Order: sequence, then structure tokens, then C-alpha cells
Amino acid sequence: MKSPGSLLDDVRAAAPLVHNITNFVAMNPMANTLLALGASPAMVHAQDEVVEFCALAQALTINIGTADGAWASAMLAAATAMRAGGRPWVLDPVGVAATGFRQALCGRLLALAPTVVRGNASEILALAGAGGRARGVDSGDPVTHAASAARQLAMRTGGVVVATGATDYVTDGTRGLYIDNGHPWMPKVTALGCSLTGVVAAFVAVHASALEATAAALAYYGLAGEIGAAHAHGPGSFQVAFVDALHAISAPQLDACARIRPG
Amino acid sequence: MKSPGSLLDDVRAAAPLVHNITNFVAMNPMANTLLALGASPAMVHAQDEVVEFCALAQALTINIGTADGAWASAMLAAATAMRAGGRPWVLDPVGVAATGFRQALCGRLLALAPTVVRGNASEILALAGAGGRARGVDSGDPVTHAASAARQLAMRTGGVVVATGATDYVTDGTRGLYIDNGHPWMPKVTALGCSLTGVVAAFVAVHASALEATAAALAYYGLAGEIGAAHAHGPGSFQVAFVDALHAISAPQLDACARIRPG
Amino acid sequence: MKSPGSLLDDVRAAAPLVHNITNFVAMNPMANTLLALGASPAMVHAQDEVVEFCALAQALTINIGTADGAWASAMLAAATAMRAGGRPWVLDPVGVAATGFRQALCGRLLALAPTVVRGNASEILALAGAGGRARGVDSGDPVTHAASAARQLAMRTGGVVVATGATDYVTDGTRGLYIDNGHPWMPKVTALGCSLTGVVAAFVAVHASALEATAAALAYYGLAGEIGAAHAHGPGSFQVAFVDALHAISAPQLDACARIRPG
Repeated sequence: MKSPGSLLDDVRAAAPLVHNITNFVAMNPMANTLLALGASPAMVHAQDEVVEFCALAQALTINIGTADGAWASAMLAAATAMRAGGRPWVLDPVGVAATGFRQALCGRLLALAPTVVRGNASEILALAGAGGRARGVDSGDPVTHAASAARQLAMRTGGVVVATGATDYVTDGTRGLYIDNGHPWMPKVTALGCSLTGVVAAFVAVHASALEATAAALAYYGLAGEIGAAHAHGPGSFQVAFVDALHAISAPQLDACARIRPG
Repeated sequence: MKSPGSLLDDVRAAAPLVHNITNFVAMNPMANTLLALGASPAMVHAQDEVVEFCALAQALTINIGTADGAWASAMLAAATAMRAGGRPWVLDPVGVAATGFRQALCGRLLALAPTVVRGNASEILALAGAGGRARGVDSGDPVTHAASAARQLAMRTGGVVVATGATDYVTDGTRGLYIDNGHPWMPKVTALGCSLTGVVAAFVAVHASALEATAAALAYYGLAGEIGAAHAHGPGSFQVAFVDALHAISAPQLDACARIRPG
Repeated sequence: MKSPGSLLDDVRAAAPLVHNITNFVAMNPMANTLLALGASPAMVHAQDEVVEFCALAQALTINIGTADGAWASAMLAAATAMRAGGRPWVLDPVGVAATGFRQALCGRLLALAPTVVRGNASEILALAGAGGRARGVDSGDPVTHAASAARQLAMRTGGVVVATGATDYVTDGTRGLYIDNGHPWMPKVTALGCSLTGVVAAFVAVHASALEATAAALAYYGLAGEIGAAHAHGPGSFQVAFVDALHAISAPQLDACARIRPG
């Protein structure tokens, strides 16, 4: 098992091209997050080119936050292409409980075997058919309530499932890990969860165990939140210091500060 | 009459879900603005789901900044749904004078009785059919020139109309209020007006008097500009400090610093 | 020949309306960049209005980063309108090597005689049919390798071509200039190249020599990178300080610090 820090170094050495079909709110901060990490982001969604672009990418993320019918078609085609190519893709089911359109789209995407599903607790509960108390796109449930649903969902997709919140939980259906890094200001900045999905994809692109790669990504991201908050006076300056921290965190620092435990 | 500070506390206690159909430039800062305030933002525009999502929202904003035909249809459907549900919606007529498409779309939206119309002076003058010297999406007119047009427009819609600028003016067609909070750097940051429209929606969601709620929102926002500017060295650091201030302003601070006068 | 600083003053005095059809990642930072410079940005793309809006603009930029078929039609119509009106437009061929869709679209746009083409070295090499080692949307080639390709491309379009990187190169096919201002953190912030395209358009809008105007824009932008980096701790705080510097740089400062040399 590789340490989180050594996986961080692997990401920076490989600088994987992460292809993102994401929502309009997240596009800019997600690209900056991936650049600060040391990956190479690209946002490409047009049906005219999305499958062709997939061939260049080491990993794909799909985020349904502002999808419509045309975007949904591109998402399905891109996920199919990545699956056919044996390359990883990560699903971010933003606000899935909110509308029938989102539920139907996520149902079709789950059938394409996402390497990782990353959502908040309410989204994971909704995907697993276990209810949840979503409020728009924000979670109304604690992560501990979603652990069982996450395991069930992972059994169904054959991949890894993450529920993020004050504590994060990641599971492949059999093993489970809790990650305790993070800071309460993180949900006060929009699209921080969406951007995390890109970081997970970058880690998964460089390591065969999606469970370990995802846990390392979560610890890295949460640690950047802790460091950023120590240099901030509110959510505006937090966002700035958070990006600085994503860039500055070293492998030894991550290994020293990662708080990952079995769950 | 509730004080601006007590309305701010009401917004934070209720954390209203504000549904925004807004332009691509504004989506990210608008979401961060609403999170810093303490509201819960969601950006949803697809015709596949926009009306269904309206049922979850306490308020809606519609901003025509980068609309096209498909978005226009979603805007009309959403405004109709909010009106039918007796819930508030706020119109932001970005650059309405610039093209026939914008004028026609705003004409149809005004007929759906927006609870509040929030524009710069040139936009309010244009909507009222009183000319205006818009330059692209920026105003070429002072707010005082738009007061009469704002009152006429409010009489026509039956709602509240705001013209924002160095001083802001808000009216329900009968009563009028000037709000003197603000800072000259505010128009140097893109989408600050668009984001204000979301703040107005959050305040209107928690108070029956749209006039009073809007005046409180304007004072709160302008005060954040004043505080942010005191900690900034230019428009970049201003934007950061402004978001910090939106999060930090307390109810007593707002009551002490709000500069609202009859007009 | 006007100095870079006097051209900066001309931009601020004219505050040109720069109309941008750009990608979703770049829209927000590009608008803030143009506001910090002192120009008036507008993002308008809908086929319903894009040509009508062109009539208001002093310059247009077209960036293909997240284009699809409908956006492509709007781009072609807008470029045609600017050309017919004798007003400048600037092409940003983001990731042109990545897909056939991008190559075909750029081929059609190049035929509409862009006043300036601004790309990274790999993009300029690809446009000139000289290969290049693009990786997604990032360059894999140094600018010096692209100088010859840039000259050839400029001969073909009859306009100015810029390859940006650690050093920038601008040419009208006959004369060439290298601009040495800049900082290594600039490619760590997304859309900084895209935003530069807007700055080039603003300078070209106020000066008859597109070569001199572009060189001044590049020196101004690179100098802001140098100043921003001196006040930053990583790519997050760099982005903030960079915008502050765009706003603060004076004409004498630019004239003293611009590093432009024949090439």
C-alpha cells in the first residue's frame, strides 16, 4: 500500500490530463484546483468532439449540476468511451434527489460503472434508494448515516463510493475508510465538492487501487482546507488560501497529517 | 417595520433556497455570495427540470445576461411557476437596451409580475421606456435620473423596482428609499450587481414587505463593499475581502451602519 | 511609434467595449481582467442577438475552448460582422490540435481574417500545420519553436499572430517582437491566456498598428504577473494580486518595465 504522500508525488510527476464535463459554477474553480495540484485540466462537453477528446484523457469526471438533454447525451457517450478504454471515470451526482431528470440521468450513468462515485451524504443516500434529506444541492444528512448506503451502492456499481462531509467515508463495498481531514468553512465556498471530484480523478488516474487513491485525495484536500483556514478571515480569503495550500502541500506533510482510519 | 439587522438574522436563520437562472459570468460569484450571506444557492436552468426545481425554492432569480432561446423558455416557465405558487422572484435585466432579443424577453418577463426588478440606472430607464445611455452592459446614467422611471415601472409591474449605482433607489411606486452604502470599487468587479440580485431574493424570501427587505439587502451589500474596500489594494483583493465581509457582518453592525433615507 | 504606457493610457481613456464569445471557464476572470484594465467587457453569444451586439463593440474576441455547433455559428456570424464593419477581432484557438471539430472551426475562422491570433506555442504550430506537441489545452512546445510558424500564419491571415509562453512572440509576418515580461506562476491559473486575449483586443481597439498594440498588451500583462507574484504565496493569492496589479500599473511604470525586443 502506497502512502498518501507518495501518491501525491505520483500525481505531480504524471500530471494526468483530467477531462471534465462539469457544471457552469464549478468549471473555473475546478480547473484552478487541478492546476494547483499539478494535474492538467480540460473542460470539453460538445457532442461534436467529446468522445474524440476522451482518447487523450487519463481520467474523466462527470458532474450533473447544470446538465440538460444535450449535455446528458455527451456524458453518456464519454462515460461509455472511458469504460471501453479501460480508463477511470468519476461521477458527481449533484442534487440528484431534486428532480426526476437528475434521477434518470444518474441511473443511466451508474449503469456505466463509474470507477468512483463522489457525493455528499444526501446524494449517496438518494442514489442508493435510501431516502436522504437533500435540500436543493446541499446535504441535510451526516456522513455516518450514509455509510451503509455507500457500501450497497459500491456493491451495485462494482466501484468505489465516497460520501463527503465533516468526515468523509470511502468504500469499495467491502473495505471502508474514514478520512477526518477538513474544515467547517469548506461548504461555505461553492463547488468545493465538485472540484474535489477532479482531484479524486487525478489520484485514481495514477494508482490501481481506487480505494487507496481516493482516500489519499480526500486527505490531501481536507488538509488543504485545514491549512487554508489557518490563513483566512472568512470564506473569501479561505478560498484563496485553500488554493495556495493545494499547491504547497508536500508529500511528507501529507503523510504526517493525513487522518485516515478503517470504518 | 423590522430593522435591516433583524432581517439579516432572519435570512441566516431561514437559509432560504434561492434558485437562480443566471448568466455564465455570474454563476460562480453569485453562489459564493449567497453562501457567504448564509443562504442556500442552486443554479438550475434546463427545461427538463426547471419547473420541478422551482417547487423546492423559497425564491427565484432570473438574469438575462447570457440568455438564448432555450434559456428564455426556461425563464418564462420558471417565473410562471413561482407566480402560480405565490413565491417571490427577482428579475435582473442585464444590458436590456443592447438588443431586440433582450427587450422582447424582458417584456415577456415583466408581464409575469416580478416581485422585484433590480437593474442599473440605464437598464431601469430602458425598461420604463425612458431612454437611458447604456453602454453594453454598463450604465451610463446616474441613479437619480432613474428614480421617476423606477416608480413608473413599479406601478406597471405591481412590484418593487431598484436602480443601483453609487446610491441605490428602491420603490414600490408609492414609497421610495435611497440607500447610500457602497464603494466605487464595486463596479470594478464583474457580476457584483448580478450577485446582489440573489441577495435581494434571499431577503425577500423571508419578509412580507419587498420594499423593506430590498432596502435591507442593499444596505447590507453596500456595507460589505465599504468594509471590503478598507482591507483591499485593488479590485482583486477587494473581491476577496468583500466576500469575507458578507460573511462577517452582524445584525447590530448592519443596524448601526445602514444608510437608508426616504426619497 | 507610441510607447506601451501611452497605449495603456489610451485604453483607459477610451474604455473600449470588448465583446467576448469565450469559453465557460474564462468568462468570469476575463471580465474581471478587462474591468481591472479599464475596459468594458460584455459576454454575448446567442445567435438571436450576437450580430446586433457586434455593432456596439469596439473589438471582439472569439475563444473556441468550450464551443459546440451553435456557438460555432455565432462565432462565424460575429467575426463576419466585425470584418464587414472594419473593426478588430482576435482569435484564441484553445486546444485546436485536440479534435477535428476544433481544427475545422479554426480553419473557417482563420478565413475571416482575424486581426490577431493569440495562442500558446502548440496551438500556433498546429494552426500553421507545423505539428506541435499539445497536451489537451496545455502547450508542450517552447515559444521559440513557434516563431517561424507564427510568421507563416501571419502571412496567411494578413494579420498579427502571437505565440505566448515563458517569452511571448508577436509578428505581422514581416516584423517580429519578443516580450520577456511574465512569471512562471501564470500558467498555474486557469484562463490567464484566455483573459490576455481580451486585453489584446482592448489595446488593438485603440491603436492602428496591431503589432505595436499587441506587444504593449503583452508587456502590460506580463508585468502584472511579475508584480502579482511578488505579493503572492501560491497560485491562489497570485491570481488576486495579479488583478490588483492590472489595475495599479501606471503608464510610466509600464514604459520603465516593458521588455520588448526585436526578434
